Amino acid sequence: MSIVVLGTVALDSVKTPFGKRKELLGGSAAHFSMAARLFTKVNLIAIVGSDFPRKHITFLRNKGLNLSSLIIDKGKTFRWEGEYRGDLNSALTLNTQLGVLSVFKPEVSLAQRKIENIFLANVDPDIQEHLLIKMHSPKLVGLDSMNYWIDTKRKELIKLLHRIDIYVANDQEARSLSGESNLIKAAKHLCSLGPKMVLIKKGEHGVLFYNKKFVFSLPAYPVEKVIDPTGAGDTFAGGFMGFLAGARKINSLAIKKALAYGTVAASFNVEDFGLHRTSKLSRSDLERRLVEFKNCFSF
Amino acid sequence: MSIVVLGTVALDSVKTPFGKRKELLGGSAAHFSMAARLFTKVNLIAIVGSDFPRKHITFLRNKGLNLSSLIIDKGKTFRWEGEYRGDLNSALTLNTQLGVLSVFKPEVSLAQRKIENIFLANVDPDIQEHLLIKMHSPKLVGLDSMNYWIDTKRKELIKLLHRIDIYVANDQEARSLSGESNLIKAAKHLCSLGPKMVLIKKGEHGVLFYNKKFVFSLPAYPVEKVIDPTGAGDTFAGGFMGFLAGARKINSLAIKKALAYGTVAASFNVEDFGLHRTSKLSRSDLERRLVEFKNCFSF
Repeated sequence: MSIVVLGTVALDSVKTPFGKRKELLGGSAAHFSMAARLFTKVNLIAIVGSDFPRKHITFLRNKGLNLSSLIIDKGKTFRWEGEYRGDLNSALTLNTQLGVLSVFKPEVSLAQRKIENIFLANVDPDIQEHLLIKMHSPKLVGLDSMNYWIDTKRKELIKLLHRIDIYVANDQEARSLSGESNLIKAAKHLCSLGPKMVLIKKGEHGVLFYNKKFVFSLPAYPVEKVIDPTGAGDTFAGGFMGFLAGARKINSLAIKKALAYGTVAASFNVEDFGLHRTSKLSRSDLERRLVEFKNCFSF
Repeated sequence: MSIVVLGTVALDSVKTPFGKRKELLGGSAAHFSMAARLFTKVNLIAIVGSDFPRKHITFLRNKGLNLSSLIIDKGKTFRWEGEYRGDLNSALTLNTQLGVLSVFKPEVSLAQRKIENIFLANVDPDIQEHLLIKMHSPKLVGLDSMNYWIDTKRKELIKLLHRIDIYVANDQEARSLSGESNLIKAAKHLCSLGPKMVLIKKGEHGVLFYNKKFVFSLPAYPVEKVIDPTGAGDTFAGGFMGFLAGARKINSLAIKKALAYGTVAASFNVEDFGLHRTSKLSRSDLERRLVEFKNCFSF
């Protein structure tokens, strides 16, 4: 089973205590894809500008992604510049240049419209809806957003939650959208807005999963040297959704496994800048670390 | 196997979003004991003032604790007053009255000196050392402290770390004493100061365990209604040390189980004020929740 991912492909400039990098290939859809490709065929729905380096296109294609709906538009590629300090738990955004993202109307081929697994990574909720209504038979739809949209397009976002299966948020976003400080209460509230499942990412503290039948909680994989956390949440979602897209049945076991794969994929992501580590990742790297990860808590 | 716990027995006044309570029975040693008593015979080493209600003495004795070394001194019982707001993750201390704690010289009977399992809950490091040197054959020694002592008696605390087996700290304390923001690095550094094992409590985010052979990480048990987190860390330590005191061999499996029992014990503690919930706790309550807890992450 393949998956469609809508999101950003960006040029990220980032500074962390371990160094500085300029215009790295990044963006929510790119990070998502590096993990999801290890489980399923990934169809990338995004936009870049005419300044987007050709080598990045080649790179993404060589990773097995279907780029037939990647728009290359006149104008500049979306750029993000950020810095991490101290414990690297949150990014300080220094600069954002939307470029062609401000005119993005996602395209999706007729063949791709039939795909049942969909992930709407963080972009404007209107763009997310624009894609979703084009899809013919959504079966498993995940959605991620960010505080900016919760603050400025709350109504649109909440409307969209009625049409999705899995809402993926970080702890701040979950608290902000639900108005609840306790994360279980927050997840319960968010579930009442439509999604069958709510997944709260807590960075170095792991992940909380909630649906009406069960609550799961996994720690993060213990990483000693976090170089650059940019895209860790998207990588997590890529491993999680990628695994579920390939799963025969979405039951509690499949969900736990998907959470673990997502966690392990994200742990690789933070070990180097941008996509450096995850682009080299193999399924057997994931499997090896999954065993180590299970050892951290199973008994 | 029995255990000796040194710490405070206090009268706690606390305000949380769920209410206000005055002069509840509390303190590090009291919270620790409510969990540890479910696994092992607990010997309480503490001091209270002549104003300490007799009913509390009866209550503690009825819980099976050996109070032969509980000093009742002229003067006032240690009192703590605090408040929790918002997500209840950290307490705001409003008032502390040391009372008899300021003249505390722990007593320990000849029979108790032979006990091999010792927990030095949070009190002045000098008092912790004062007890430790009296013990005849320490086999498993755990120690907890707090930021106040890290700031004011760093040297004494570090000296003491050379003589213990398990250092128990919360994330802030671990970062502060080690100077490392990454918790794995912090644990590694703390381990280099002497203790064989380091246990970092992360409140609602669970716990991280480190020794030279392995790293374990467990999430917290998901509690929807946190009423009063006072003493959760001590309750955790009580479950953890209590289980290990009764374990035949301290290997990786025993440590994981001990972490899980500590987690589950702490989850009961936060569900009501003071010792209300944990004092009613039975071993079978713990076992039942342990099964649920394992279900949250095992696959």
